Amino acid sequence: MDEFDLIRRFFVRDGLPGVAGVRGAPGVRAGAILGPGDDCALLAATTTATARLALTTDLLVEGVHFFSDVDPHALGHKALAVNLSDLAAMGARPVAYLLALALPRVDLEWLEGFARGLHALADRYGIELVGGDTTRGPLTIAITALGEVDPAIALRRDRARPGDDIWVSGCLGAAAFAVRERLGGQPLVASHPARARLDKPAPRVELGLELAKLAAHGLVHAAIDLSDGLAGDLSHILERSSTALGASMGAVLWAESLPSHACLSGLIHEDRLDLMLFGGDDYELLLTAPTTARSALESLGGLHRIGTLDAGPSLRLQDGSGNQRVLPDRAYRHFRSESERL
Amino acid sequence: MDEFDLIRRFFVRDGLPGVAGVRGAPGVRAGAILGPGDDCALLAATTTATARLALTTDLLVEGVHFFSDVDPHALGHKALAVNLSDLAAMGARPVAYLLALALPRVDLEWLEGFARGLHALADRYGIELVGGDTTRGPLTIAITALGEVDPAIALRRDRARPGDDIWVSGCLGAAAFAVRERLGGQPLVASHPARARLDKPAPRVELGLELAKLAAHGLVHAAIDLSDGLAGDLSHILERSSTALGASMGAVLWAESLPSHACLSGLIHEDRLDLMLFGGDDYELLLTAPTTARSALESLGGLHRIGTLDAGPSLRLQDGSGNQRVLPDRAYRHFRSESERL
Repeated sequence: MDEFDLIRRFFVRDGLPGVAGVRGAPGVRAGAILGPGDDCALLAATTTATARLALTTDLLVEGVHFFSDVDPHALGHKALAVNLSDLAAMGARPVAYLLALALPRVDLEWLEGFARGLHALADRYGIELVGGDTTRGPLTIAITALGEVDPAIALRRDRARPGDDIWVSGCLGAAAFAVRERLGGQPLVASHPARARLDKPAPRVELGLELAKLAAHGLVHAAIDLSDGLAGDLSHILERSSTALGASMGAVLWAESLPSHACLSGLIHEDRLDLMLFGGDDYELLLTAPTTARSALESLGGLHRIGTLDAGPSLRLQDGSGNQRVLPDRAYRHFRSESERL
Repeated sequence: MDEFDLIRRFFVRDGLPGVAGVRGAPGVRAGAILGPGDDCALLAATTTATARLALTTDLLVEGVHFFSDVDPHALGHKALAVNLSDLAAMGARPVAYLLALALPRVDLEWLEGFARGLHALADRYGIELVGGDTTRGPLTIAITALGEVDPAIALRRDRARPGDDIWVSGCLGAAAFAVRERLGGQPLVASHPARARLDKPAPRVELGLELAKLAAHGLVHAAIDLSDGLAGDLSHILERSSTALGASMGAVLWAESLPSHACLSGLIHEDRLDLMLFGGDDYELLLTAPTTARSALESLGGLHRIGTLDAGPSLRLQDGSGNQRVLPDRAYRHFRSESERL
């Protein structure tokens, strides 16, 4: 058995549909007609007449998106999680994924950890690795995730309307705090809760599915997942929705209502705001909804109402005394970030 | 307009479905319900009741898969072409693709060339870029291509049978010749036909569709595209088909029948064989078919019958005098190559 046999062994698991026509392992969705090992995977794309395919791809590069010494299990988890988060932000149910992986060398221990992290998260959602490509190169992970959603209820970015409430799931700023401590030369211990938020984000798949059900009744208008920071990601909703509406739209965020992660409690107020607004890597869902949706959204649990949309055009932060300031350009147009979704 | 606006302008074209609901440009397949700019693309995956989704991903890394000074237009073409070649080898009709791109810097001239190369090939097949991700990093291109094919006629690798004829499209060895000359310090001029074969391979999409039609009548058994070299790729068919059959299978290739590219004519016989058997990057289709398919396959034009499958187990080369030699391990198990399909 040579190195490539081993690589394949880590990623292509028994029980996946293969040459012998073995069907899915227990608990694994039997969506793939033909799994890894051929020129293409074959997939029955969607399971219902109204469902359509949701597709997303995210690229993670060593030194840009993760530290070189990251635990490979965490990296495997995160590489898939950031893609599942995009599906969640669309209200799509995950179906399958493909992996393109460039590796500087074949390190079997590293590969086993990475594969385990990947598979553990995939198993949680019953999705399959249906194909991929491995090559020598600088450590780079490109995952393409496939999901299904009825376009009539899909959570788009361009359907927000003035007067909408702004809601966010979970709490913010912990991942950015972990990055800041590391860059400041004081890496957090592995057991620190902020490390878990940075290394093993939990994609809000179930919440996305619940929100899509509400969208069917007009109770959710727009959604996005928080990867670049609350201010930057909200600005994406504003830009696309303003264009779709043909009129400018802005937003007010209430500083006192932003849900900060417990690990930020020792920080001064401005620091905490900075991490929550511009930090990124939270992988929570940000959504806008009509005011009539409040009780429905509150009953889901875990959502915080943090602001409101208006005729704008700017993105403003309002303090407890009602004073507003416009958030800086790096928030409203996040192009100082190093990645950009096409 | 900042750098990221420009990047987006190159890749996201007018006429693609977007926020304003503009439908596809003339000649562009209107498959995407929602194109670039949201968390996911939304796609009506397949157009007929029997069609299923074919998925493939290929990763190209600077210095591994292409020379650093490659013409960006050619690179854009090739990055998509190698994925379309996988769809062709499945007999699938291309539908859409996603692009994940890591760039060391924003070089607008380079980006424009790359995007033009990509779009020119995409337009030829009426397919859309439906989503993607760009980031800073070592130059790396990961494309995921989607197609559609009826699984009942898909050209799999695992359906070859002893007694099958072996056929190959086009001619072999030119791309490998161009690589060899370059590595030997004597790069071919840009207008050399071997350079075109290396830089701008033509995926055999139409041929794949024709072959799938024949497969519906049992006239094609197995197929693969030639990316790693004839010997290595044929060995993939042998391995998977032997496993599926539960019995060993081998092959004899006829040295005198291998279609060498005209640019190899000045080489000695052994050199020519080496490039054709082990060279790679040809992106022709290799297929196996029952002997009853000969007239049907000949009538397609451009196919060469180059050998036969038997009970093996080895892969052998037969010369004009009928002498056979077993091809070396690097052919039969191509794991010295630097990439491996999952």
